[in-house]
Amino acid sequence: MSFSIRRLIFGSPLRSERAIHEKLPIILALPIFASDALSSVAYATETILKQFQKLHLRQDQFGIALGISIAIVTLILMVVISYRQVIYSYPRGGGSYIVARENLGIFIGLVAASALLVDYILTVSVSIADCVAQSNSALIQINSAFRELENHKALLSVFLVLIITYVNLRGVRESGATFAGPSYGFITLIVLLIGAGCYRLWFGGGALESVAAQPDPKAVEGLDWLIIVRGFASGCAALTGIEAISNGVPTFKAPEARNAAVTLAILGGFLAFMFTGITYLAVQFKIGPNESETVISQIARASFGTSMPGGILYYGVQIFTSAILFLAANTAYSSYPRLCSILAEDGYLPRQLTSIGDRLSYNNGILVLAFCSILFLLVFQGEAHALIPLYTIGVFIAFTTAQLGMVRRSWHMKPRPWIGLMINLIGGIITLAVLFVVGSSKFIAFEQPPLFGTTWFYEGAWMALTLMAIIVWVFYAIHRHYQNVDRQLSIIPPDVMKPFRHTVVVLVPSRIHRGILMALNYARSISPDAVAVHIAFDRSREQYLRDQWEAHGGDTPLIILDSPYRTLVGPLMQYLDAAEKVRSDDIITVVLPEFVPARWWHTLLHNASGWLLRLRLHYRRDIVVVSVRYYLD
Amino acid sequence: MSFSIRRLIFGSPLRSERAIHEKLPIILALPIFASDALSSVAYATETILKQFQKLHLRQDQFGIALGISIAIVTLILMVVISYRQVIYSYPRGGGSYIVARENLGIFIGLVAASALLVDYILTVSVSIADCVAQSNSALIQINSAFRELENHKALLSVFLVLIITYVNLRGVRESGATFAGPSYGFITLIVLLIGAGCYRLWFGGGALESVAAQPDPKAVEGLDWLIIVRGFASGCAALTGIEAISNGVPTFKAPEARNAAVTLAILGGFLAFMFTGITYLAVQFKIGPNESETVISQIARASFGTSMPGGILYYGVQIFTSAILFLAANTAYSSYPRLCSILAEDGYLPRQLTSIGDRLSYNNGILVLAFCSILFLLVFQGEAHALIPLYTIGVFIAFTTAQLGMVRRSWHMKPRPWIGLMINLIGGIITLAVLFVVGSSKFIAFEQPPLFGTTWFYEGAWMALTLMAIIVWVFYAIHRHYQNVDRQLSIIPPDVMKPFRHTVVVLVPSRIHRGILMALNYARSISPDAVAVHIAFDRSREQYLRDQWEAHGGDTPLIILDSPYRTLVGPLMQYLDAAEKVRSDDIITVVLPEFVPARWWHTLLHNASGWLLRLRLHYRRDIVVVSVRYYLD
Repeated sequence: MSFSIRRLIFGSPLRSERAIHEKLPIILALPIFASDALSSVAYATETILKQFQKLHLRQDQFGIALGISIAIVTLILMVVISYRQVIYSYPRGGGSYIVARENLGIFIGLVAASALLVDYILTVSVSIADCVAQSNSALIQINSAFRELENHKALLSVFLVLIITYVNLRGVRESGATFAGPSYGFITLIVLLIGAGCYRLWFGGGALESVAAQPDPKAVEGLDWLIIVRGFASGCAALTGIEAISNGVPTFKAPEARNAAVTLAILGGFLAFMFTGITYLAVQFKIGPNESETVISQIARASFGTSMPGGILYYGVQIFTSAILFLAANTAYSSYPRLCSILAEDGYLPRQLTSIGDRLSYNNGILVLAFCSILFLLVFQGEAHALIPLYTIGVFIAFTTAQLGMVRRSWHMKPRPWIGLMINLIGGIITLAVLFVVGSSKFIAFEQPPLFGTTWFYEGAWMALTLMAIIVWVFYAIHRHYQNVDRQLSIIPPDVMKPFRHTVVVLVPSRIHRGILMALNYARSISPDAVAVHIAFDRSREQYLRDQWEAHGGDTPLIILDSPYRTLVGPLMQYLDAAEKVRSDDIITVVLPEFVPARWWHTLLHNASGWLLRLRLHYRRDIVVVSVRYYLD
Repeated sequence: MSFSIRRLIFGSPLRSERAIHEKLPIILALPIFASDALSSVAYATETILKQFQKLHLRQDQFGIALGISIAIVTLILMVVISYRQVIYSYPRGGGSYIVARENLGIFIGLVAASALLVDYILTVSVSIADCVAQSNSALIQINSAFRELENHKALLSVFLVLIITYVNLRGVRESGATFAGPSYGFITLIVLLIGAGCYRLWFGGGALESVAAQPDPKAVEGLDWLIIVRGFASGCAALTGIEAISNGVPTFKAPEARNAAVTLAILGGFLAFMFTGITYLAVQFKIGPNESETVISQIARASFGTSMPGGILYYGVQIFTSAILFLAANTAYSSYPRLCSILAEDGYLPRQLTSIGDRLSYNNGILVLAFCSILFLLVFQGEAHALIPLYTIGVFIAFTTAQLGMVRRSWHMKPRPWIGLMINLIGGIITLAVLFVVGSSKFIAFEQPPLFGTTWFYEGAWMALTLMAIIVWVFYAIHRHYQNVDRQLSIIPPDVMKPFRHTVVVLVPSRIHRGILMALNYARSISPDAVAVHIAFDRSREQYLRDQWEAHGGDTPLIILDSPYRTLVGPLMQYLDAAEKVRSDDIITVVLPEFVPARWWHTLLHNASGWLLRLRLHYRRDIVVVSVRYYLD
């Protein structure tokens, strides 16, 4: 029954042989690996503007965002070039964990792994929260009644996470075809949007619909370095997802490394162009971030308008943005469980994470990811942007460790590949520097508390760092446990297979019936000198029992133990203690006769003390408990 | 740990020898057995008046209550005389169940038993609810702020039930000394109250404090037969608890039967006097029932006043009335589990109800009683009077069956004891008649819905009857099950002790370690031709396993089964099916090596698939599962 329900929901089990990856050409690999990185275009600009708004920067100085985005694009190109080195060096797939572990030692490797684990969880939370915000913006344009939905953002987000989880438990294959439509659609529409926006600005006379933000009455502050730095730190969210390709090199068509490197370059190009374009338009249209409409939606409204026929493009942007955010979350669902299983293989996470489910997916990892990302969504009340600083920290830790690992690796190669080494060294230094900037500027932050009364609680990088420290500690604790167990189990004493004698004890109740005799027979077949033990609550029944034993018990001796406190456990334990002392060279087997009623609720009608006894025996060392079951019709 | 907490809460276990009852003289037996019956004085009058109020009888006609109470007193005396016969005939204790079972057959016996079971539950609910109401009345006199408590009546009642349950689980002995104070105190105060009340009425110029009820504006109806009958039916609540003495004859000092009969007569006398007296005063003081003050409280106010020094007596009446109601509930806590255990011995209730706890009390019965009475209290929102009709039906069924059982018994005696037979016959006919009157007049009722919108839902005798019918059906269902099991178990085939061969299978994982070898050794000691079975998810590890087996496995063959769907269960089951076919004359033992980690949470780090396998094997017939545990440090 339960089995067929499971089949209905999750589909029939798949054979292990089907776990072979499809080999992808660039045209199909790009959409799969790009979804996470491209989706950051949807929120990176908005994050910068939100930061400005929070710091009460005057609206007329928001233009600096363009400068910041150009700096970030430079950084993106640096990282892309650095990662091409990783791809060529680890053609079998090298995430930051593997690169760091192999070159910088296990500790740095685990730090990178903890950063990645936190990041994948945040990818799901941020993408889904943004996906909901995006869909909301569009729905409000259709009918303002949809404004109601804003109060349920967190719930809607959780619902979407559950859908992705279900789909992944069913074991969706990452097929290029599924991803191609939304990814290429998104790229096309964003390129069109940038084109249309520039046309409106340069030749069309400005925004089609009013989008310019109201000036902030509290905005008094002028531009200073701190604001620029914090804006930059916020915008670095655009770099998330770039490392994905380096993890998945083996899935590319041969020549794998080269194709992967080409794909990464193309991705970098698109990312740079789209991010700069969106930021340019946002600045030019004087868009301010607001709660009920995303920046992308405002830009699309200004460029295409919501009325037909341009409206088709407006809604298209919304739909494809939502879709790419959804796919980005889905990408984390394949990366996170895979990383967990690698860590579990190495003994740093529970072994269950290596087990593959009926549908060839790592079910346990998927469930952990779902649980954690839902937790984040609920704690942060579906506010994506509150999570982004946490996210950025993790991304840059992963970048830095991977780059510096590559430097170390090149250093030890003969001949030393100086060019590669320099590229990675510069990449590593820059990402490390950015990590410090983001970390320190965001270590704590102020203003606008969503829940607990202080923003720093939410926005502070302290949270990501604390979380990572805890995770690394857990990694080591788990590893110590496994090593400890392993040590104990591998010592194989020479006398382990020395035959031992059995002391077999059958517990019998005050009435000897068919089920009891079956258990007795079993006991006697194990050992010729089995004994039966009866624990007497009521001595007046003793003779009755002895008579029955005379008739059916054969030559097995019957020992009657008194139980003045009417408990089975006490007297039996005393007996076992005594038996252990008498014969120290053997093992005691306790045979318990057990009924199995025809209907489960019939068990309510039979004495439950057997269960209690079994439980107590389970906690006793050096005995073996055998239930011999007699089935009732 | 858990053991010592239990000790702290419930006390140390007691030895079975201590379960001997104290033998009571009349002076100590009376308070124990009388508490239930006497306590009905506290609410019987009120129940009649509430019934009048509900039927909108005019206040000036409430006087008829006195006539009704005299009729009820006559009935009480009839029942007392009848029960003296029961006492002499069943000196070893004969409740209605036993009398009916022995003389009228098991079906009528079970009907009586079901009535009693329902009644004991209702005794607890009604007494406790009334105890709370009584205490409330007194507290409001002290400070009207206590009126607030009325909203929490149900909760307070539940709390009191929990206290009684706890005390009984600790195994309180029914000592005469405990009961003597409250019972004799209650009798003395009520007698004083009646004296003082009559004095005020006849010589003192009426009530000390104003208690006369406001005339009911809706009261238009005059007196008719239906009102009298329903008043009578309501007042019959005064008869509850009379049968208690007949259950407990063996606890009296010798001559047991005579002493019990004397005690019953004394009880009958007090009951008759107190009930008539209270009703007389209520009528004379023109007291109407109201929500926030009980009738007893109003009478005591009118007779003693609340100001000192008479106030001491007023509060005394309240305190002792509350105390006797509490003791009445406590009495049910000893009767109900005892009846349950008799029924369980006879195979009509689950056997667990016969088991005696650490403190020599029938814990399971106590818990069932607590659960049911709390359920009633919550459903009826702490309104005691709503429960009384249900209660009365049960009492009269028990009376009728006991009396008619006695008639049947006398009829078959030689020589026929005509006087006794006539007494019981008349008693039986009258109680049967009252049963019909109460049953039909209360079968459904109207007005004042406390919860579901229709009073008949609550007050209807239909509920008691339906409940009893269900209980009787359950009795039979349980009995059928036990008989069925018994039949299967008692057939002992001649070849039951024929020695059989063992097929022993040890399940081994992909790594052979110390724990596995221990299990293997155990398996080989049971059977020389044990086999090891490995279920392979991943064929690439096969050679590694074979090498290990070569080194440590000895001469036990290793069978490797493929599992394309990565499940342990499927391939193992197929193997067991095959093994069963090959050798039909033996038993298959599956040996499972098991880890026991040092800390319980370490189990999270080890593969849980063993549990799943064990569960599946548990549902497979004709195999024995043995866990050989290896303890980790």
